[in-house]
Amino acid sequence: MPDRLGPPLGAPLFERAAIIGVGLIGSSLARVVRRKGLAREIAVYDASANVRERLRALAIADEVADSPAAAVAGADLVILCAPVGAMGEIARQIGPHLKAGAIVSDVGSVKSSIIAAVAPHLPASVHFIPAHPVAGTEQSGPDAGFASLFLNRWTILTPPEGADPKAVALLTAFWKNTGANVETMAPAHHDLVLAITSHVPHLIAYNIVGTAADLEEVTQSEVIKYSAGGFRDFTRIAASDPVMWRDIFLNNKDAVLEMLGRFSEDLTALQRMIRREDGEGLEGLFTRTRAIRRSIIDQGQETAAPDFGRRPKDD
Amino acid sequence: MPDRLGPPLGAPLFERAAIIGVGLIGSSLARVVRRKGLAREIAVYDASANVRERLRALAIADEVADSPAAAVAGADLVILCAPVGAMGEIARQIGPHLKAGAIVSDVGSVKSSIIAAVAPHLPASVHFIPAHPVAGTEQSGPDAGFASLFLNRWTILTPPEGADPKAVALLTAFWKNTGANVETMAPAHHDLVLAITSHVPHLIAYNIVGTAADLEEVTQSEVIKYSAGGFRDFTRIAASDPVMWRDIFLNNKDAVLEMLGRFSEDLTALQRMIRREDGEGLEGLFTRTRAIRRSIIDQGQETAAPDFGRRPKDD
Repeated sequence: MPDRLGPPLGAPLFERAAIIGVGLIGSSLARVVRRKGLAREIAVYDASANVRERLRALAIADEVADSPAAAVAGADLVILCAPVGAMGEIARQIGPHLKAGAIVSDVGSVKSSIIAAVAPHLPASVHFIPAHPVAGTEQSGPDAGFASLFLNRWTILTPPEGADPKAVALLTAFWKNTGANVETMAPAHHDLVLAITSHVPHLIAYNIVGTAADLEEVTQSEVIKYSAGGFRDFTRIAASDPVMWRDIFLNNKDAVLEMLGRFSEDLTALQRMIRREDGEGLEGLFTRTRAIRRSIIDQGQETAAPDFGRRPKDD
Repeated sequence: MPDRLGPPLGAPLFERAAIIGVGLIGSSLARVVRRKGLAREIAVYDASANVRERLRALAIADEVADSPAAAVAGADLVILCAPVGAMGEIARQIGPHLKAGAIVSDVGSVKSSIIAAVAPHLPASVHFIPAHPVAGTEQSGPDAGFASLFLNRWTILTPPEGADPKAVALLTAFWKNTGANVETMAPAHHDLVLAITSHVPHLIAYNIVGTAADLEEVTQSEVIKYSAGGFRDFTRIAASDPVMWRDIFLNNKDAVLEMLGRFSEDLTALQRMIRREDGEGLEGLFTRTRAIRRSIIDQGQETAAPDFGRRPKDD
């Protein structure tokens, strides 16, 4: 089977890439950087000593540093892959140790609050170009990563006004070489788009799993047995990293509350249709939502395989 | 690769099985009945002439009847697989043509209202034992079915008080031979359990896809591009058959409204946590919901593979 990531580059884009925070995203990045030869050298750092030990065993980087400062020393690309709430403190620690001319980026799921937390700690000599690869699974930790996580997914760059076009072009080339499509937008718009496509879906998934767990009339065992009826898809989302998601909601509060308000209004209208037995209204909405699914499949953001390949192989 | 459904039975459980309504579930049933030799003869009927024509081409049944009455003639097992709202009318049509001693069952996702609609039309000489296989995909139509759809899923029987134990045992054996686990419960309890494990999850999936489609600040193209952040899992559910789901909500109104009320209360509390920036409260809920996911995987109702096998094979 041909490697869908394509062959390595002839010459690396960067001399030394430093990845700070090595969970699902960070370890996937390290893997694809090596696989595609995007940097001559890869240094990683994680705040957890256990993760650092695991990283030495996994050997997906050239250097497992013992401090963020040591990891970024000499790096011309630094990518912060820590939880959103930890970004500011990391920026404060690495700020004085960054190489002049380095590109500093991140992979955070919110952008406005990260920019506010990180930018003040960075010297004027570096290019800060925030980014968000919209990719992931419900797994976390360095063992969960894989090189093709970003393939055919979208990475959104939110460069500040007046950003150096050469630095933006280089970071764009970097992400394209991971297999991702790249788009640029303003941080506030990013936060609104992600609130509806990611943050509110996660919130309501967490919420219904919580509601089901608290019922007295229906046992937890019943919820689990009959989850194939739809519920289990929500539990997948609701199994995502709790700390990461706590930080996302705290740091994209306004956009999430705005989109949650729309969702609740619409749900109230739907509830009213059921109470009034408005079959036509229900069928109309249910028909409309099918078309959106079709577009997502057509644009390669999903497979049309029924049940996500849960269909047994021997059938 | 061994066939996970196991070898056919030595002798069939039924002489003639009639399946009325042949979409995803009905056609999966026809396929597994033939594969496992559960009935000597399979007759099918669908209200759509196009579907009947397609069924003749698919050749998954011995007889494609031109009326429900013709399909059930001589059948000792009759399974109604039509949308919930059509069950009563079908029962009225087949009632006079049912063979004495036949087992009449269904696969409807609600039970109390189907029993109320169907039972009055059936002669006292048949055994009416409602059933609900909790299995499915977002696909519909006779081409979408496959023989192992019910494998390791649960089928819930809701026999009326005083039902013939031999008929219940025979229908239980039938479902076990499709690969399903079988459980028995009261119709009202079934409707409550399914409201939280299936009906409300579908409703909120339809709702958020509708909310996203109606936004002015975020384009439909953006919603589709960045759906990998969580939204796409909801679109899968929201692509399910609109008529089937309209009927489910109209026919399980009370239980759905009750569970929806709980969901909304919990969502309001969660919204309040975000507004008040209660990080501890958020993290607590998000941690709790992970455990439920674990149980679902442990009990075989889901695979632990990240991203449902979306992870590329060449990685």
